[in-house]
Parts: sequence; structure tokens; C-alpha cells
Amino acid sequence: MFEIKTPRRVCTLDITPRVSQAVENIGLTEGAAMVYVPHTTAAVTINEGADFDVQRDILTTISKLIPRGGDYSHLEGNADAHIKSTLVGVSVLVPVSRGSLILGTWQKVFFCEFDGPRARKFYVIGLPGLVKEQ
Amino acid sequence: MFEIKTPRRVCTLDITPRVSQAVENIGLTEGAAMVYVPHTTAAVTINEGADFDVQRDILTTISKLIPRGGDYSHLEGNADAHIKSTLVGVSVLVPVSRGSLILGTWQKVFFCEFDGPRARKFYVIGLPGLVKEQ
Amino acid sequence: MFEIKTPRRVCTLDITPRVSQAVENIGLTEGAAMVYVPHTTAAVTINEGADFDVQRDILTTISKLIPRGGDYSHLEGNADAHIKSTLVGVSVLVPVSRGSLILGTWQKVFFCEFDGPRARKFYVIGLPGLVKEQ
Repeated sequence: MFEIKTPRRVCTLDITPRVSQAVENIGLTEGAAMVYVPHTTAAVTINEGADFDVQRDILTTISKLIPRGGDYSHLEGNADAHIKSTLVGVSVLVPVSRGSLILGTWQKVFFCEFDGPRARKFYVIGLPGLVKEQ
Repeated sequence: MFEIKTPRRVCTLDITPRVSQAVENIGLTEGAAMVYVPHTTAAVTINEGADFDVQRDILTTISKLIPRGGDYSHLEGNADAHIKSTLVGVSVLVPVSRGSLILGTWQKVFFCEFDGPRARKFYVIGLPGLVKEQ
Repeated sequence: MFEIKTPRRVCTLDITPRVSQAVENIGLTEGAAMVYVPHTTAAVTINEGADFDVQRDILTTISKLIPRGGDYSHLEGNADAHIKSTLVGVSVLVPVSRGSLILGTWQKVFFCEFDGPRARKFYVIGLPGLVKEQ
């Protein structure tokens, strides 16, 4: 279990190095790393890490589609964050081969905060798997 | 394989107890439970189960973004349900440790119906995995 | 690793036969096939394969929600494709039993291109799992 502090209401944080470290600690060599977020107003995604504008565009566009101040039943003021969590999802899988994450050239794993700032956590679970030159 | 009857065109149903029971039946102690929906107009998500208004807001907002009566090519009257299925997704993973689901405090697993009422089904598959105090 | 050429900027391609072949090559009998897309402007989904209009509706509707020419910070002209990739997701899981994919009657696995035409790739990883008559 990893702890993470999110600095703003809505933001993404690159957690790739911690996922990579977890795979090493677990001793997984072939299969997939599952990243799991045990929260209902946060999520996790894989996307471009080179140009931070991509993250900004993702968050801005999702917030335009699902505005904070919509006509919601849930009275805690964070209904939008719950909806965003369901659309982005609370887990991702990353292939692992020879003990390393197999990410694309531009891919990074991002924790997505939709109702911060908060102290959050996430899990990394190693799922052993079969890969073969196909 | 589990069977489930959905009572309305659009609704979510808490299937957490059945996922938990499946993990016990399978005998999975460490890893992840994969919940899979073999339908193209339904989905599965993990979100808040304490305040039912959250579920209502999720469904209402998604239906505003993807209205039933849009300008669609598919002539069966359920094009919206197919699109919602792709955006929410037809599988989730839940971490399992010591034979129990590791969900966050407010998390429950919900079957999402977008074109009911119908008789539906879902699968739970145990994926053995490696967890380690990280 | 599989290679795939996408013919248009935005399209979906049925990759089910290749996923099925990969499961056979790997020799996976019980568990799940994980399909992974190592790109940040593409994705993978499971949806109806019988009526191609469903695919058209999915792509058209997602493009209406997230237009190519929006007010984006990312200057490469493909910000929309990154956002779509995060909402649809870059991996799916398909149950496998007795060496075959367990898809629903209408389900097929689709590679989703949001910034083509391009030469793309995807991985299929076999995750051995426990299934039991439940």
C-alpha cells in the first residue's frame, strides 16, 4: 500500500516510479502490475507524461463535461468527482516482462484526484502471467 | 456465472456480496477478483454504496451526456446503451487478500444496466497474485 | 506483440481473432486474456460486432463530446485523442475457459484508433486464473 498527498482539488500525479518499485519489491518477473485506488472520488489512468499540457487538457475537458456545480442529488458537493471516478476507473493493468513495466514510449501511470487536496492511497498487486513471442 | 434481473431500463445494482461469495467459493486467498459482464449494453463499476444519490447522479449525468434519443445510426433504439457500456467498461478488478475483497471504505461493486429490464449475467474469475507489504 | 495498421484518423478494428490466436499460442486454458495498447492516443474496448453502426455511433458520439478542435493547451492537434484514450482505456480483460475466449454473444474486442492512420501495436498477456461453477 502506498500513500500519496494530492495538492489540489483536481490534479494528476505521476506514480510510475512507485509502481515500478512495487513490481521489483514483489519480485514479479512476467505478467501484469495491477494498480488499484480504494477511493470513490479518485481514479487512475495511463496517458502521456512528456507534455504536461496533455494532463491539463484531460482534466479541463472532463470537468467541462461533468461540472462541479451541476444539478446533483448527492449533497456533499463532490458528485462530479464520483462520476469522473467511474468514467476514468479505479484500476489499471501494466504489462511486466523481465521484471520491468512494459509501457509505451510516452506512457506514464497517473493517480487522478477529483476531490482533493487529500491524503490518498493506492495498491500495487502482481499478477503472474504468460507472455510468449507471438 | 451469476444471474441477475434488472428492474428498469437504467439502474445500478450492488453485487458486492456475490463477488465476495465467489472469491470464497473459488478459494482465492491473494490476488484479484475479476468481474466480467458479457453484454454490450451493460457494464460494471466500483463506486460509493453508502448514499444512493451518488448512483443516481452517475446515471443521470451519463444519460445527459449520451441521451437515449440522439442522432444514431444503430436502429434498435439502444445505441446510447452501447456507448455507455464502452465508457464505463465491462470488467473491474478488486484486490483480494487473506480471502477477502480489499475495497475502500465507501466502495461497492455495481452492475450497471443501460438497456433493461432484462435477465443478465456476470462472471467472477480469481486471478492469483503477489502482494507484499510495500 | 501484434502489429496493426489503422486506415483512418478515427476508427475501430476487430482484433478478436488475433486475441484468440494469442491465447492458443500462449497455451492459457483458464483465466483471462489481457489486451494492452502501449499508445496514448489509442485504446481498446469490448462492444457489439454484429452491426457496424454501433461502432460508428460510439466514435461519433465520443467525438461530439470531445471535439478535435476544442480549446486545448497541447499543441500537437491531437489533445482530443489523448482524452478519448483515458476515457475508453488502454486495456481490457477477457475471460478464458478451456482455452477459449468467453465473450458474450455480441461481444468483440476492438482496437480504437483516435489519431491515425498509423502503424500501431498491442500485447496479449495470459493471466492464469481460477474459475469454478458458482
